[in-house]
Amino acid sequence: MPLMMDIPQLHDFLQNVFTQVAGSFRVERLDDMEIDVRLIVDDGHLRPGGTVSGPSMFGLADVAVYLAVMAMIGPKALAVTTNASIDFMRKPQAGQDIIAKCRLLKLGRSLAVGECLIYSAGGDTPVARANLTYSIPPTGSNADISMG
Amino acid sequence: MPLMMDIPQLHDFLQNVFTQVAGSFRVERLDDMEIDVRLIVDDGHLRPGGTVSGPSMFGLADVAVYLAVMAMIGPKALAVTTNASIDFMRKPQAGQDIIAKCRLLKLGRSLAVGECLIYSAGGDTPVARANLTYSIPPTGSNADISMG
Amino acid sequence: MPLMMDIPQLHDFLQNVFTQVAGSFRVERLDDMEIDVRLIVDDGHLRPGGTVSGPSMFGLADVAVYLAVMAMIGPKALAVTTNASIDFMRKPQAGQDIIAKCRLLKLGRSLAVGECLIYSAGGDTPVARANLTYSIPPTGSNADISMG
Amino acid sequence: MPLMMDIPQLHDFLQNVFTQVAGSFRVERLDDMEIDVRLIVDDGHLRPGGTVSGPSMFGLADVAVYLAVMAMIGPKALAVTTNASIDFMRKPQAGQDIIAKCRLLKLGRSLAVGECLIYSAGGDTPVARANLTYSIPPTGSNADISMG
Repeated sequence: MPLMMDIPQLHDFLQNVFTQVAGSFRVERLDDMEIDVRLIVDDGHLRPGGTVSGPSMFGLADVAVYLAVMAMIGPKALAVTTNASIDFMRKPQAGQDIIAKCRLLKLGRSLAVGECLIYSAGGDTPVARANLTYSIPPTGSNADISMG
Repeated sequence: MPLMMDIPQLHDFLQNVFTQVAGSFRVERLDDMEIDVRLIVDDGHLRPGGTVSGPSMFGLADVAVYLAVMAMIGPKALAVTTNASIDFMRKPQAGQDIIAKCRLLKLGRSLAVGECLIYSAGGDTPVARANLTYSIPPTGSNADISMG
Repeated sequence: MPLMMDIPQLHDFLQNVFTQVAGSFRVERLDDMEIDVRLIVDDGHLRPGGTVSGPSMFGLADVAVYLAVMAMIGPKALAVTTNASIDFMRKPQAGQDIIAKCRLLKLGRSLAVGECLIYSAGGDTPVARANLTYSIPPTGSNADISMG
Repeated sequence: MPLMMDIPQLHDFLQNVFTQVAGSFRVERLDDMEIDVRLIVDDGHLRPGGTVSGPSMFGLADVAVYLAVMAMIGPKALAVTTNASIDFMRKPQAGQDIIAKCRLLKLGRSLAVGECLIYSAGGDTPVARANLTYSIPPTGSNADISMG
Protein backbone atom coordinates (compact mmCIF):
# COMPACT_ATOMS: atom_id res chain seq x y z
CA MET A 1 0.00 0.00 0.00
CA PRO A 2 1.28 3.50 -0.73
CA LEU A 3 1.93 5.73 2.27
CA MET A 4 -0.50 8.65 2.64
CA MET A 5 1.94 10.65 4.80
CA ASP A 6 5.71 10.85 5.05
CA ILE A 7 7.85 11.48 8.12
CA PRO A 8 7.77 15.30 7.99
CA GLN A 9 3.98 15.18 7.58
CA LEU A 10 3.70 12.87 10.59
CA HIS A 11 5.79 15.30 12.64
CA ASP A 12 3.56 18.20 11.55
CA PHE A 13 0.46 16.17 12.39
CA LEU A 14 1.86 15.36 15.83
CA GLN A 15 2.66 19.04 16.37
CA ASN A 16 -0.90 20.06 15.41
CA VAL A 17 -2.75 17.39 17.30
CA PHE A 18 -0.57 16.55 20.32
CA THR A 19 1.20 19.90 20.64
CA GLN A 20 2.12 19.40 24.25
CA VAL A 21 4.06 16.19 23.80
CA ALA A 22 5.02 16.31 20.11
CA GLY A 23 8.58 17.44 20.85
CA SER A 24 9.29 14.24 22.75
CA PHE A 25 8.67 11.92 19.78
CA ARG A 26 10.70 11.45 16.62
CA VAL A 27 9.81 9.09 13.79
CA GLU A 28 13.03 7.36 12.83
CA ARG A 29 11.82 5.00 10.13
CA LEU A 30 8.61 4.64 8.17
CA ASP A 31 7.68 1.93 5.73
CA ASP A 32 4.60 0.10 4.50
CA MET A 33 2.74 -0.93 7.69
CA GLU A 34 5.91 -0.31 9.79
CA ILE A 35 7.27 2.50 11.92
CA ASP A 36 10.08 3.13 14.42
CA VAL A 37 9.52 5.98 16.86
CA ARG A 38 11.95 7.34 19.47
CA LEU A 39 10.93 8.83 22.81
CA ILE A 40 13.43 11.55 23.66
CA VAL A 41 13.59 10.87 27.37
CA ASP A 42 13.64 13.75 29.85
CA ASP A 43 13.22 13.94 33.62
CA GLY A 44 9.44 13.78 33.32
CA HIS A 45 9.67 10.26 31.90
CA LEU A 46 11.86 8.81 34.64
CA ARG A 47 11.26 6.72 37.73
CA PRO A 48 13.68 6.47 40.68
CA GLY A 49 16.92 4.87 39.51
CA GLY A 50 16.71 6.74 36.23
CA THR A 51 14.66 4.20 34.29
CA VAL A 52 11.86 5.17 31.97
CA SER A 53 8.40 4.84 33.56
CA GLY A 54 5.74 2.37 32.48
CA PRO A 55 3.28 5.09 31.40
CA SER A 56 6.04 6.64 29.23
CA MET A 57 6.59 3.30 27.48
CA PHE A 58 2.85 2.90 27.08
CA GLY A 59 2.58 6.43 25.66
CA LEU A 60 5.36 5.77 23.15
CA ALA A 61 3.74 2.56 21.88
CA ASP A 62 0.39 4.32 21.63
CA VAL A 63 1.74 7.27 19.64
CA ALA A 64 3.87 5.04 17.43
CA VAL A 65 1.09 2.70 16.28
CA TYR A 66 -1.27 5.67 15.93
CA LEU A 67 1.23 7.36 13.60
CA ALA A 68 1.63 4.14 11.62
CA VAL A 69 -2.15 4.11 11.11
CA MET A 70 -2.15 7.79 10.10
CA ALA A 71 0.68 7.15 7.63
CA MET A 72 -1.43 4.47 5.95
CA ILE A 73 -4.88 6.09 5.95
CA GLY A 74 -4.12 9.80 6.17
CA PRO A 75 -4.72 12.16 9.09
CA LYS A 76 -7.87 11.22 11.03
CA ALA A 77 -7.34 12.59 14.47
CA LEU A 78 -10.42 10.92 15.87
CA ALA A 79 -9.04 7.43 15.53
CA VAL A 80 -9.04 6.26 19.13
CA THR A 81 -7.20 3.58 21.05
CA THR A 82 -9.70 1.00 22.27
CA ASN A 83 -7.38 -1.62 23.77
CA ALA A 84 -3.75 -1.91 24.74
CA SER A 85 -1.77 -4.66 26.39
CA ILE A 86 1.84 -4.30 27.44
CA ASP A 87 4.44 -6.64 28.95
CA PHE A 88 7.30 -5.03 30.83
CA MET A 89 10.15 -7.50 30.46
CA ARG A 90 13.40 -5.78 31.42
CA LYS A 91 14.52 -2.58 33.09
CA PRO A 92 15.33 0.08 30.47
CA GLN A 93 18.89 1.41 30.58
CA ALA A 94 19.25 4.57 32.65
CA GLY A 95 19.96 7.70 30.68
CA GLN A 96 18.88 6.27 27.32
CA ASP A 97 16.04 7.16 24.99
CA ILE A 98 13.65 4.35 24.15
CA ILE A 99 12.61 3.27 20.67
CA ALA A 100 9.41 1.48 19.65
CA LYS A 101 9.67 -0.72 16.56
CA CYS A 102 6.11 -1.34 15.41
CA ARG A 103 4.14 -2.98 12.65
CA LEU A 104 0.50 -2.96 11.72
CA LEU A 105 -0.95 -6.46 11.58
CA LYS A 106 -4.43 -5.40 10.52
CA LEU A 107 -5.75 -2.27 8.90
CA GLY A 108 -9.46 -2.82 8.42
CA ARG A 109 -12.23 -0.37 7.68
CA SER A 110 -13.10 0.10 11.32
CA LEU A 111 -10.31 -1.51 13.37
CA ALA A 112 -6.51 -1.43 13.20
CA VAL A 113 -4.19 -3.68 15.20
CA GLY A 114 -0.50 -3.06 15.71
CA GLU A 115 2.30 -4.38 17.87
CA CYS A 116 5.62 -3.00 19.07
CA LEU A 117 8.85 -4.08 20.62
CA ILE A 118 10.42 -1.35 22.76
CA TYR A 119 14.19 -1.07 23.14
CA SER A 120 16.57 1.18 25.03
CA ALA A 121 18.49 3.16 22.43
CA GLY A 122 21.53 1.11 21.47
CA GLY A 123 20.15 -2.06 23.08
CA ASP A 124 19.23 -5.19 21.16
CA THR A 125 16.96 -7.00 23.64
CA PRO A 126 13.45 -5.61 24.01
CA VAL A 127 12.52 -4.01 27.35
CA ALA A 128 8.79 -4.25 26.63
CA ARG A 129 6.26 -5.46 24.09
CA ALA A 130 2.86 -3.97 23.39
CA ASN A 131 -0.17 -4.56 21.20
CA LEU A 132 -2.80 -1.93 20.53
CA THR A 133 -6.17 -1.71 18.79
CA TYR A 134 -7.62 1.47 17.29
CA SER A 135 -11.14 2.26 16.22
CA ILE A 136 -11.10 4.18 12.96
CA PRO A 137 -13.92 6.67 12.24
CA PRO A 138 -15.80 6.20 8.96
CA THR A 139 -14.22 7.94 5.97
CA GLY A 140 -15.79 11.28 5.17
CA SER A 141 -16.94 11.88 8.73
CA ASN A 142 -15.89 15.11 10.40
CA ALA A 143 -13.16 13.08 11.96
CA ASP A 144 -11.02 13.83 8.93
CA ILE A 145 -8.65 16.66 9.64
CA SER A 146 -7.33 18.98 7.01
CA MET A 147 -3.67 19.64 7.58
CA GLY A 148 -3.45 23.44 7.81
CA MET B 1 -5.95 -9.63 55.99
CA PRO B 2 -4.82 -6.70 58.12
CA LEU B 3 -3.53 -3.67 56.23
CA MET B 4 0.22 -3.07 56.60
CA MET B 5 -0.09 0.63 55.65
CA ASP B 6 -2.83 3.23 56.01
CA ILE B 7 -3.67 6.11 53.66
CA PRO B 8 -1.20 8.65 55.16
CA GLN B 9 1.56 6.03 54.97
CA LEU B 10 0.72 5.33 51.32
CA HIS B 11 0.92 9.06 50.58
CA ASP B 12 4.32 9.25 52.34
CA PHE B 13 5.51 6.21 50.41
CA LEU B 14 4.41 7.78 47.13
CA GLN B 15 6.19 11.00 48.07
CA ASN B 16 9.41 9.12 48.86
CA VAL B 17 9.41 6.79 45.90
CA PHE B 18 7.62 8.67 43.09
CA THR B 19 8.41 12.20 44.24
CA GLN B 20 7.87 13.73 40.84
CA VAL B 21 4.31 12.59 40.37
CA ALA B 22 3.15 11.95 43.95
CA GLY B 23 1.25 15.24 44.14
CA SER B 24 -1.07 14.16 41.33
CA PHE B 25 -2.45 11.12 43.15
CA ARG B 26 -4.72 10.92 46.17
CA VAL B 27 -5.90 7.73 47.83
CA GLU B 28 -9.60 8.22 48.53
CA ARG B 29 -10.51 4.87 50.00
CA LEU B 30 -8.53 1.90 51.26
CA ASP B 31 -9.86 -1.43 52.42
CA ASP B 32 -8.83 -5.07 52.51
CA MET B 33 -7.63 -5.81 48.93
CA GLU B 34 -9.38 -2.64 47.64
CA ILE B 35 -8.38 0.92 46.85
CA ASP B 36 -9.79 4.02 45.15
CA VAL B 37 -7.24 6.51 43.83
CA ARG B 38 -7.89 9.91 42.24
CA LEU B 39 -5.73 11.49 39.55
CA ILE B 40 -5.80 15.24 40.07
CA VAL B 41 -5.86 16.20 36.41
CA ASP B 42 -3.75 19.09 35.17
CA ASP B 43 -2.80 20.31 31.69
CA GLY B 44 -0.06 17.72 31.41
CA HIS B 45 -2.64 14.93 31.48
CA LEU B 46 -4.86 16.29 28.73
CA ARG B 47 -5.32 15.57 25.05
CA PRO B 48 -6.92 17.98 22.55
CA GLY B 49 -10.57 18.50 23.48
CA GLY B 50 -9.67 18.50 27.16
CA THR B 51 -9.97 14.77 27.77
CA VAL B 52 -7.52 12.82 29.90
CA SER B 53 -4.89 11.00 27.84
CA GLY B 54 -4.54 7.24 27.61
CA PRO B 55 -1.10 7.18 29.25
CA SER B 56 -2.52 9.20 32.18
CA MET B 57 -5.27 6.62 32.67
CA PHE B 58 -2.72 3.84 32.39
CA GLY B 59 -0.49 5.60 34.93
CA LEU B 60 -3.35 6.00 37.39
CA ALA B 61 -4.31 2.31 37.19
CA ASP B 62 -0.67 1.32 37.61
CA VAL B 63 -0.12 3.50 40.69
CA ALA B 64 -3.45 2.50 42.22
CA VAL B 65 -2.94 -1.26 42.07
CA TYR B 66 0.69 -0.83 43.14
CA LEU B 67 -0.46 1.07 46.24
CA ALA B 68 -3.06 -1.61 46.96
CA VAL B 69 -0.27 -4.20 46.92
CA MET B 70 1.93 -2.03 49.17
CA ALA B 71 -0.97 -1.57 51.61
CA MET B 72 -1.28 -5.34 51.90
CA ILE B 73 2.38 -6.41 52.03
CA GLY B 74 4.17 -3.27 53.26
CA PRO B 75 6.53 -0.99 51.34
CA LYS B 76 8.58 -2.94 48.80
CA ALA B 77 9.50 -0.40 46.18
CA LEU B 78 10.99 -3.01 43.89
CA ALA B 79 7.69 -4.67 43.11
CA VAL B 80 7.43 -4.17 39.36
CA THR B 81 4.60 -4.17 36.87
CA THR B 82 5.04 -7.09 34.49
CA ASN B 83 1.82 -6.89 32.47
CA ALA B 84 -1.02 -4.45 31.96
CA SER B 85 -4.04 -4.51 29.71
CA ILE B 86 -6.45 -1.62 29.35
CA ASP B 87 -9.69 -1.05 27.46
CA PHE B 88 -10.63 2.53 26.69
CA MET B 89 -14.41 2.49 26.53
CA ARG B 90 -15.68 6.07 26.69
CA LYS B 91 -14.29 9.56 26.45
CA PRO B 92 -13.58 10.98 29.91
CA GLN B 93 -15.46 14.19 30.76
CA ALA B 94 -13.47 17.33 30.03
CA GLY B 95 -12.29 19.22 33.08
CA GLN B 96 -12.80 16.36 35.52
CA ASP B 97 -10.38 14.35 37.61
CA ILE B 98 -10.46 10.60 37.07
CA ILE B 99 -10.80 7.96 39.76
CA ALA B 100 -9.64 4.34 39.63
CA LYS B 101 -11.62 1.88 41.74
CA CYS B 102 -9.44 -1.21 42.09
CA ARG B 103 -9.35 -4.56 43.81
CA LEU B 104 -6.65 -7.17 44.18
CA LEU B 105 -7.77 -10.55 42.86
CA LYS B 106 -4.59 -12.39 43.76
CA LEU B 107 -1.82 -11.65 46.20
CA GLY B 108 0.60 -14.54 45.92
CA ARG B 109 4.18 -14.87 47.12
CA SER B 110 5.62 -13.77 43.81
CA LEU B 111 2.75 -12.38 41.73
CA ALA B 112 -0.13 -10.01 42.42
CA VAL B 113 -3.06 -9.37 40.07
CA GLY B 114 -5.43 -6.43 40.31
CA GLU B 115 -8.13 -4.83 38.23
CA CYS B 116 -9.64 -1.35 38.05
CA LEU B 117 -12.59 0.50 36.66
CA ILE B 118 -11.77 4.13 35.88
CA TYR B 119 -14.43 6.85 36.13
CA SER B 120 -14.57 10.57 35.50
CA ALA B 121 -15.15 12.22 38.88
CA GLY B 122 -18.89 12.40 39.44
CA GLY B 123 -19.61 9.91 36.63
CA ASP B 124 -21.14 6.48 37.16
CA THR B 125 -20.22 4.69 33.92
CA PRO B 126 -16.62 3.57 33.60
CA VAL B 127 -14.44 5.27 30.96
CA ALA B 128 -11.84 2.50 31.05
CA ARG B 129 -11.01 -0.84 32.62
CA ALA B 130 -7.57 -2.21 33.35
CA ASN B 131 -5.90 -5.30 34.75
CA LEU B 132 -2.31 -5.39 35.96
CA THR B 133 0.16 -7.98 37.20
CA TYR B 134 3.08 -7.23 39.53
CA SER B 135 6.12 -9.30 40.32
CA ILE B 136 6.89 -9.14 44.05
CA PRO B 137 10.51 -9.48 45.21
CA PRO B 138 11.20 -12.17 47.83
CA THR B 139 10.70 -11.04 51.43
CA GLY B 140 13.90 -10.04 53.17
CA SER B 141 15.64 -9.04 49.95
CA ASN B 142 17.09 -5.57 49.71
CA ALA B 143 13.91 -4.67 47.93
CA ASP B 144 12.36 -3.87 51.29
CA ILE B 145 12.47 -0.19 51.94
CA SER B 146 12.53 1.28 55.37
CA MET B 147 10.24 4.24 55.59
CA GLY B 148 12.39 7.10 56.97
CA MET C 1 -32.24 -1.88 29.39
CA PRO C 2 -34.80 -4.60 28.73
CA LEU C 3 -33.44 -8.05 27.89
CA MET C 4 -34.03 -9.15 24.27
CA MET C 5 -33.60 -12.84 25.14
CA ASP C 6 -34.24 -14.93 28.24
CA ILE C 7 -32.31 -17.97 29.47
CA PRO C 8 -34.27 -20.60 27.44
CA GLN C 9 -33.82 -18.48 24.31
CA LEU C 10 -30.09 -18.25 24.98
CA HIS C 11 -29.91 -22.01 25.34
CA ASP C 12 -31.81 -22.44 22.05
CA PHE C 13 -29.51 -19.96 20.37
CA LEU C 14 -26.45 -21.81 21.63
CA GLN C 15 -27.91 -25.08 20.40
CA ASN C 16 -28.54 -23.62 16.92
CA VAL C 17 -25.29 -21.80 16.51
CA PHE C 18 -22.73 -23.78 18.52
CA THR C 19 -24.41 -27.16 18.31
CA GLN C 20 -21.24 -29.10 19.00
CA VAL C 21 -20.46 -27.50 22.35
CA ALA C 22 -23.87 -26.18 23.44
CA GLY C 23 -24.46 -29.05 25.85
CA SER C 24 -21.43 -28.09 27.89
CA PHE C 25 -22.73 -24.65 28.84
CA ARG C 26 -25.58 -23.66 31.11
CA VAL C 27 -26.71 -20.11 31.81
CA GLU C 28 -27.32 -19.95 35.56
CA ARG C 29 -28.24 -16.29 35.98
CA LEU C 30 -29.12 -13.49 33.59
CA ASP C 31 -29.71 -9.87 34.42
CA ASP C 32 -29.31 -6.46 32.83
CA MET C 33 -25.73 -6.47 31.47
CA GLU C 34 -24.83 -9.49 33.65
CA ILE C 35 -24.63 -13.23 33.20
CA ASP C 36 -23.35 -16.31 35.03
CA VAL C 37 -22.52 -19.33 32.88
CA ARG C 38 -21.41 -22.80 34.01
CA LEU C 39 -19.08 -25.07 32.06
CA ILE C 40 -20.15 -28.66 32.72
CA VAL C 41 -16.68 -30.13 32.86
CA ASP C 42 -15.96 -33.48 31.21
CA ASP C 43 -12.75 -35.33 30.39
CA GLY C 44 -12.18 -33.24 27.28
CA HIS C 45 -11.75 -30.10 29.40
CA LEU C 46 -9.15 -31.53 31.75
CA ARG C 47 -5.39 -31.34 32.02
CA PRO C 48 -3.24 -33.86 33.91
CA GLY C 49 -4.05 -33.66 37.59
CA GLY C 50 -7.72 -33.22 36.80
CA THR C 51 -7.76 -29.42 36.55
CA VAL C 52 -9.67 -27.57 33.86
CA SER C 53 -7.48 -26.49 30.93
CA GLY C 54 -6.71 -22.90 30.00
CA PRO C 55 -8.47 -23.11 26.64
CA SER C 56 -11.59 -24.43 28.40
CA MET C 57 -11.59 -21.42 30.73
CA PHE C 58 -11.01 -19.13 27.78
CA GLY C 59 -13.87 -20.78 25.90
CA LEU C 60 -16.24 -20.37 28.82
CA ALA C 61 -15.47 -16.66 29.21
CA ASP C 62 -15.89 -16.17 25.46
CA VAL C 63 -19.27 -17.91 25.30
CA ALA C 64 -20.51 -16.22 28.47
CA VAL C 65 -19.82 -12.64 27.39
CA TYR C 66 -21.09 -13.44 23.90
CA LEU C 67 -24.38 -14.66 25.38
CA ALA C 68 -24.61 -11.54 27.54
CA VAL C 69 -24.29 -9.43 24.38
CA MET C 70 -26.92 -11.55 22.60
CA ALA C 71 -29.27 -11.20 25.57
CA MET C 72 -29.00 -7.41 25.30
CA ILE C 73 -29.13 -6.91 21.51
CA GLY C 74 -30.87 -10.04 20.26
CA PRO C 75 -29.41 -12.93 18.25
CA LYS C 76 -26.70 -11.74 15.87
CA ALA C 77 -24.48 -14.71 15.34
CA LEU C 78 -21.90 -12.76 13.41
CA ALA C 79 -20.77 -10.74 16.39
CA VAL C 80 -17.12 -11.74 16.64
CA THR C 81 -14.56 -11.69 19.41
CA THR C 82 -11.80 -9.25 18.48
CA ASN C 83 -9.70 -9.27 21.66
CA ALA C 84 -9.44 -11.31 24.82
CA SER C 85 -7.08 -11.16 27.76
CA ILE C 86 -7.05 -13.68 30.57
CA ASP C 87 -5.14 -14.06 33.83
CA PHE C 88 -4.87 -17.53 35.28
CA MET C 89 -4.55 -16.97 39.00
CA ARG C 90 -5.17 -20.24 40.82
CA LYS C 91 -5.50 -23.91 39.99
CA PRO C 92 -9.16 -24.87 39.56
CA GLN C 93 -10.39 -27.60 41.92
CA ALA C 94 -10.22 -31.08 40.44
CA GLY C 95 -13.56 -32.63 39.60
CA GLN C 96 -15.53 -29.40 39.73
CA ASP C 97 -17.40 -27.46 37.07
CA ILE C 98 -16.31 -23.87 36.55
CA ILE C 99 -18.57 -20.83 36.54
CA ALA C 100 -17.94 -17.48 34.83
CA LYS C 101 -19.60 -14.47 36.44
CA CYS C 102 -19.57 -11.73 33.84
CA ARG C 103 -20.79 -8.20 33.24
CA LEU C 104 -20.88 -6.00 30.19
CA LEU C 105 -19.03 -2.73 30.76
CA LYS C 106 -19.78 -1.26 27.35
CA LEU C 107 -22.41 -2.03 24.77
CA GLY C 108 -21.83 0.41 21.93
CA ARG C 109 -23.12 0.36 18.36
CA SER C 110 -20.06 -1.43 17.05
CA LEU C 111 -18.07 -2.65 20.07
CA ALA C 112 -18.99 -4.44 23.29
CA VAL C 113 -16.65 -4.98 26.24
CA GLY C 114 -17.20 -7.46 29.03
CA GLU C 115 -15.29 -8.97 31.89
CA CYS C 116 -15.56 -12.17 33.92
CA LEU C 117 -14.34 -13.75 37.08
CA ILE C 118 -14.13 -17.53 36.83
CA TYR C 119 -14.66 -19.76 39.87
CA SER C 120 -14.58 -23.46 40.58
CA ALA C 121 -18.14 -24.48 41.46
CA GLY C 122 -18.55 -24.01 45.19
CA GLY C 123 -15.40 -21.89 45.49
CA ASP C 124 -15.32 -18.24 46.47
CA THR C 125 -11.92 -17.12 45.22
CA PRO C 126 -11.59 -16.62 41.47
CA VAL C 127 -9.33 -19.01 39.55
CA ALA C 128 -9.11 -16.67 36.55
CA ARG C 129 -10.21 -13.29 35.26
CA ALA C 130 -10.86 -12.34 31.65
CA ASN C 131 -11.87 -9.35 29.56
CA LEU C 132 -13.20 -9.61 26.03
CA THR C 133 -14.14 -7.26 23.21
CA TYR C 134 -16.68 -8.08 20.48
CA SER C 135 -17.29 -6.39 17.18
CA ILE C 136 -21.02 -6.11 16.51
CA PRO C 137 -22.28 -6.18 12.91
CA PRO C 138 -24.52 -3.27 11.82
CA THR C 139 -28.22 -3.76 12.56
CA GLY C 140 -30.18 -5.00 9.59
CA SER C 141 -27.19 -6.66 7.98
CA ASN C 142 -27.48 -10.30 7.06
CA ALA C 143 -25.71 -10.96 10.30
CA ASP C 144 -29.09 -11.02 11.99
CA ILE C 145 -30.27 -14.54 12.49
CA SER C 146 -33.87 -15.51 12.69
CA MET C 147 -34.45 -18.01 15.43
CA GLY C 148 -36.18 -20.95 13.83
CA MET D 1 21.41 -20.66 23.92
CA PRO D 2 21.60 -24.40 23.19
CA LEU D 3 18.28 -26.22 22.92
CA MET D 4 17.57 -28.65 25.78
CA MET D 5 15.05 -30.63 23.71
CA ASP D 6 14.63 -31.35 20.01
CA ILE D 7 11.40 -31.80 18.05
CA PRO D 8 10.98 -35.56 18.71
CA GLN D 9 11.56 -34.94 22.43
CA LEU D 10 8.92 -32.19 22.40
CA HIS D 11 6.47 -34.56 20.74
CA ASP D 12 7.22 -37.23 23.38
CA PHE D 13 6.80 -34.67 26.13
CA LEU D 14 3.45 -33.57 24.71
CA GLN D 15 2.36 -37.20 24.49
CA ASN D 16 3.31 -37.81 28.12
CA VAL D 17 1.91 -34.67 29.60
CA PHE D 18 -1.04 -33.71 27.38
CA THR D 19 -1.92 -37.17 26.14
CA GLN D 20 -5.45 -36.26 25.23
CA VAL D 21 -4.61 -33.47 22.81
CA ALA D 22 -1.03 -34.32 21.82
CA GLY D 23 -2.07 -35.82 18.50
CA SER D 24 -3.52 -32.50 17.35
CA PHE D 25 -0.22 -30.60 17.54
CA ARG D 26 2.89 -30.90 15.40
CA VAL D 27 6.08 -28.91 15.86
CA GLU D 28 7.13 -27.83 12.39
CA ARG D 29 10.21 -25.75 13.19
CA LEU D 30 12.33 -25.23 16.27
CA ASP D 31 15.17 -22.82 16.72
CA ASP D 32 16.79 -20.77 19.47
CA MET D 33 13.85 -19.02 21.20
CA GLU D 34 11.57 -19.75 18.22
CA ILE D 35 8.99 -22.35 17.33
CA ASP D 36 6.31 -23.02 14.70
CA VAL D 37 3.50 -25.36 15.72
CA ARG D 38 0.63 -26.64 13.60
CA LEU D 39 -2.85 -27.45 14.87
CA ILE D 40 -4.19 -30.35 12.85
CA VAL D 41 -7.76 -29.14 12.66
CA ASP D 42 -10.63 -31.60 13.09
CA ASP D 43 -14.36 -31.13 13.60
CA GLY D 44 -13.91 -30.47 17.30
CA HIS D 45 -11.98 -27.28 16.52
CA LEU D 46 -14.56 -25.78 14.19
CA ARG D 47 -17.29 -23.18 14.51
CA PRO D 48 -20.26 -22.87 12.14
CA GLY D 49 -19.01 -21.94 8.69
CA GLY D 50 -16.05 -24.23 9.11
CA THR D 51 -13.66 -21.74 10.70
CA VAL D 52 -11.39 -22.61 13.59
CA SER D 53 -12.80 -21.53 16.95
CA GLY D 54 -11.25 -18.90 19.20
CA PRO D 55 -10.48 -21.36 22.02
CA SER D 56 -8.68 -23.60 19.49
CA MET D 57 -6.48 -20.69 18.41
CA PHE D 58 -5.88 -19.81 22.03
CA GLY D 59 -4.98 -23.42 22.80
CA LEU D 60 -2.52 -23.57 19.92
CA ALA D 61 -0.72 -20.39 21.00
CA ASP D 62 -0.60 -21.66 24.58
CA VAL D 63 0.88 -25.04 23.66
CA ALA D 64 3.32 -23.51 21.17
CA VAL D 65 4.90 -21.00 23.54
CA TYR D 66 4.90 -23.61 26.32
CA LEU D 67 6.85 -25.98 24.06
CA ALA D 68 9.28 -23.19 23.16
CA VAL D 69 9.94 -22.67 26.87
CA MET D 70 10.39 -26.43 27.40
CA ALA D 71 12.81 -26.60 24.48
CA MET D 72 14.95 -23.92 26.12
CA ILE D 73 14.85 -25.01 29.78
CA GLY D 74 14.05 -28.72 29.58
CA PRO D 75 10.84 -30.49 30.59
CA LYS D 76 9.21 -28.83 33.59
CA ALA D 77 5.56 -29.70 33.32
CA LEU D 78 4.59 -27.42 36.16
CA ALA D 79 5.36 -24.26 34.25
CA VAL D 80 1.97 -22.54 34.15
CA THR D 81 0.40 -19.92 31.95
CA THR D 82 -0.31 -16.83 34.05
CA ASN D 83 -1.50 -14.39 31.38
CA ALA D 84 -2.56 -14.49 27.76
CA SER D 85 -3.88 -11.84 25.42
CA ILE D 86 -5.11 -12.56 21.94
CA ASP D 87 -6.38 -10.44 19.03
CA PHE D 88 -8.58 -12.17 16.48
CA MET D 89 -7.97 -10.23 13.28
CA ARG D 90 -9.31 -12.22 10.36
CA LYS D 91 -11.47 -15.26 9.77
CA PRO D 92 -9.33 -18.38 9.33
CA GLN D 93 -9.78 -20.20 6.03
CA ALA D 94 -12.30 -23.03 6.17
CA GLY D 95 -10.82 -26.49 5.94
CA GLN D 96 -7.26 -25.46 6.72
CA ASP D 97 -4.97 -26.25 9.63
CA ILE D 98 -3.63 -23.27 11.54
CA ILE D 99 0.01 -22.59 12.33
CA ALA D 100 1.41 -20.50 15.18
CA LYS D 101 4.79 -18.89 14.55
CA CYS D 102 6.15 -17.92 17.94
CA ARG D 103 9.21 -16.46 19.59
CA LEU D 104 10.26 -16.09 23.18
CA LEU D 105 10.97 -12.47 24.08
CA LYS D 106 12.01 -13.14 27.65
CA LEU D 107 13.20 -16.25 29.40
CA GLY D 108 13.93 -15.23 32.97
CA ARG D 109 14.40 -17.34 36.06
CA SER D 110 10.76 -17.12 37.07
CA LEU D 111 8.87 -15.64 34.10
CA ALA D 112 8.89 -16.29 30.37
CA VAL D 113 7.14 -14.14 27.76
CA GLY D 114 6.37 -15.21 24.21
CA GLU D 115 4.34 -14.01 21.28
CA CYS D 116 2.80 -15.67 18.23
CA LEU D 117 1.30 -14.86 14.90
CA ILE D 118 -1.27 -17.43 13.83
CA TYR D 119 -1.86 -18.22 10.14
CA SER D 120 -4.15 -20.46 8.18
CA ALA D 121 -1.94 -23.09 6.53
CA GLY D 122 -0.83 -21.69 3.20
CA GLY D 123 -1.89 -18.13 4.12
CA ASP D 124 0.49 -15.22 4.50
CA THR D 125 -1.59 -12.75 6.51
CA PRO D 126 -2.02 -13.53 10.19
CA VAL D 127 -5.51 -14.45 11.42
CA ALA D 128 -4.62 -13.77 15.06
CA ARG D 129 -1.82 -12.60 17.32
CA ALA D 130 -1.20 -13.65 20.89
CA ASN D 131 1.16 -12.96 23.77
CA LEU D 132 1.55 -15.25 26.75
CA THR D 133 3.37 -15.23 30.08
CA TYR D 134 4.45 -18.36 31.97
CA SER D 135 5.54 -18.75 35.54
CA ILE D 136 8.48 -21.15 35.77
CA PRO D 137 8.94 -23.29 38.89
CA PRO D 138 12.34 -23.05 40.64
CA THR D 139 14.98 -25.43 39.28
CA GLY D 140 15.36 -28.59 41.32
CA SER D 141 11.81 -28.51 42.59
CA ASN D 142 9.66 -31.57 42.07
CA ALA D 143 8.29 -29.74 39.10
CA ASP D 144 11.09 -31.26 37.04
CA ILE D 145 9.86 -34.25 35.16
CA SER D 146 12.05 -37.10 34.10
CA MET D 147 11.31 -38.19 30.61
CA GLY D 148 10.62 -41.90 30.84
